[in-house]
Amino acid sequence: MPTNEFILRRRVQFYETDPAGIVHFSWFFRYMEEAEHALWRDAGLSIHPPDSELGWPRVAASFEYQRALRFEDEFVIHLRIANMSQKTIRYECTVKKDDQPIATGTMTVACVRKKPTMRAVEIPDEIVKRLRAHE
Amino acid sequence: MPTNEFILRRRVQFYETDPAGIVHFSWFFRYMEEAEHALWRDAGLSIHPPDSELGWPRVAASFEYQRALRFEDEFVIHLRIANMSQKTIRYECTVKKDDQPIATGTMTVACVRKKPTMRAVEIPDEIVKRLRAHE
Amino acid sequence: MPTNEFILRRRVQFYETDPAGIVHFSWFFRYMEEAEHALWRDAGLSIHPPDSELGWPRVAASFEYQRALRFEDEFVIHLRIANMSQKTIRYECTVKKDDQPIATGTMTVACVRKKPTMRAVEIPDEIVKRLRAHE
Amino acid sequence: MPTNEFILRRRVQFYETDPAGIVHFSWFFRYMEEAEHALWRDAGLSIHPPDSELGWPRVAASFEYQRALRFEDEFVIHLRIANMSQKTIRYECTVKKDDQPIATGTMTVACVRKKPTMRAVEIPDEIVKRLRAHE
Repeated sequence: MPTNEFILRRRVQFYETDPAGIVHFSWFFRYMEEAEHALWRDAGLSIHPPDSELGWPRVAASFEYQRALRFEDEFVIHLRIANMSQKTIRYECTVKKDDQPIATGTMTVACVRKKPTMRAVEIPDEIVKRLRAHE
Repeated sequence: MPTNEFILRRRVQFYETDPAGIVHFSWFFRYMEEAEHALWRDAGLSIHPPDSELGWPRVAASFEYQRALRFEDEFVIHLRIANMSQKTIRYECTVKKDDQPIATGTMTVACVRKKPTMRAVEIPDEIVKRLRAHE
Repeated sequence: MPTNEFILRRRVQFYETDPAGIVHFSWFFRYMEEAEHALWRDAGLSIHPPDSELGWPRVAASFEYQRALRFEDEFVIHLRIANMSQKTIRYECTVKKDDQPIATGTMTVACVRKKPTMRAVEIPDEIVKRLRAHE
Repeated sequence: MPTNEFILRRRVQFYETDPAGIVHFSWFFRYMEEAEHALWRDAGLSIHPPDSELGWPRVAASFEYQRALRFEDEFVIHLRIANMSQKTIRYECTVKKDDQPIATGTMTVACVRKKPTMRAVEIPDEIVKRLRAHE
């Protein structure tokens, strides 16, 4: 297990579950993003500071599901930066409950300048430096 | 029944329902807003055109629930403008299925100028004129 | 201010905010419900235990909005049981940030037996007793 | 392009968009599921009939994003059954606006018997037969 992974603890909310009584699969993508934003805060950064010229659109995301989560379950999101290129960051994520794997996911985000039209740009050095501590 | 009410037909989606098998109560507020935006389009308007200086934050919203909606139910949202003051609009809404009342709601929105800081302003004449047709 | 209110601390997630950069109004109803379920847990209860014969549908909900919440804002939900009748519970809720009021809400839920068809029943004594400590 | 793909037309709702003004990436998974359920209805089926013994949990889902969708955009979801094994169905999906690709996704679902504990079972013949028409 990588030593630099970031860990976020979370509880399943009622509105996240579906008629089958389990967390709707779309929510895992939000869990992964919650962990990403918490990792950035932990690195002294905000991914969306007010009036920022930069944005971080997602270019790919995936999940494989092994087990279900239910209302009020406590679970853990393990997130790590698997790769950082000049303009993109790739995350890998494992969701676990009681040390059992629930789901595994990946997400790739690009650094873009928002104006005048959205275009990919290099990740600023300061951000690279701070995120490297979590790589 | 008012003659100028706006009607939106809709079907319940799976991700809108909860472990009890019914639409989660928070969704009715989104249904009401969907109908509001459709009413504006019907009046030749967009409530959020790109780069608009105006915004329409909600200042109050409520629902009373009489019956439940379930997955794949087809239902109807009846929305009407109950009152339009210089700076606010008040909507009334009834959700029905097979002519049976499911829920009734209200929503008040304010017209604001977003910059430099958000403050209430008078609703532009052009918007008043177009919405009057639906009042 | 009532001494028996329940307090839940929370941070705004990215997916809860809208193009205006503020929390979408529908999310406050979910915040209020999150606080309700946390209050029940604090009272040693789960509002939706597996295979329960009882359900707690919402019969009314409302919010008035005074200020906006933005991405990563830390805020507090103050929830209290304003009234408990034989078959219903009424909550009152205040959302605050840095001690400033953001929004105030109410929610009434009914105790129902789910099968064979949903009908209102008296709240079980054990639940009444445990919730009284929070009233 | 496959001739048997299923097409669902849709409009972006306000609550689906984020502070960047674009549809939040998690919503594409819901769009794909909406199209799946509409395809089933088109085949004379409901994927979640009341009191069904069967469930259809997702075992994998992915999206790659090429362009953004914005508030009130009209778009089209192209869904097709890429593969049907004895116990699973794999969908492929393309989201387009004005014939331009926005995103492409995949989703694999398993047929399970829900009680006494969830386990994979063969897809019933009647369902196979009806979905074959869409393969």
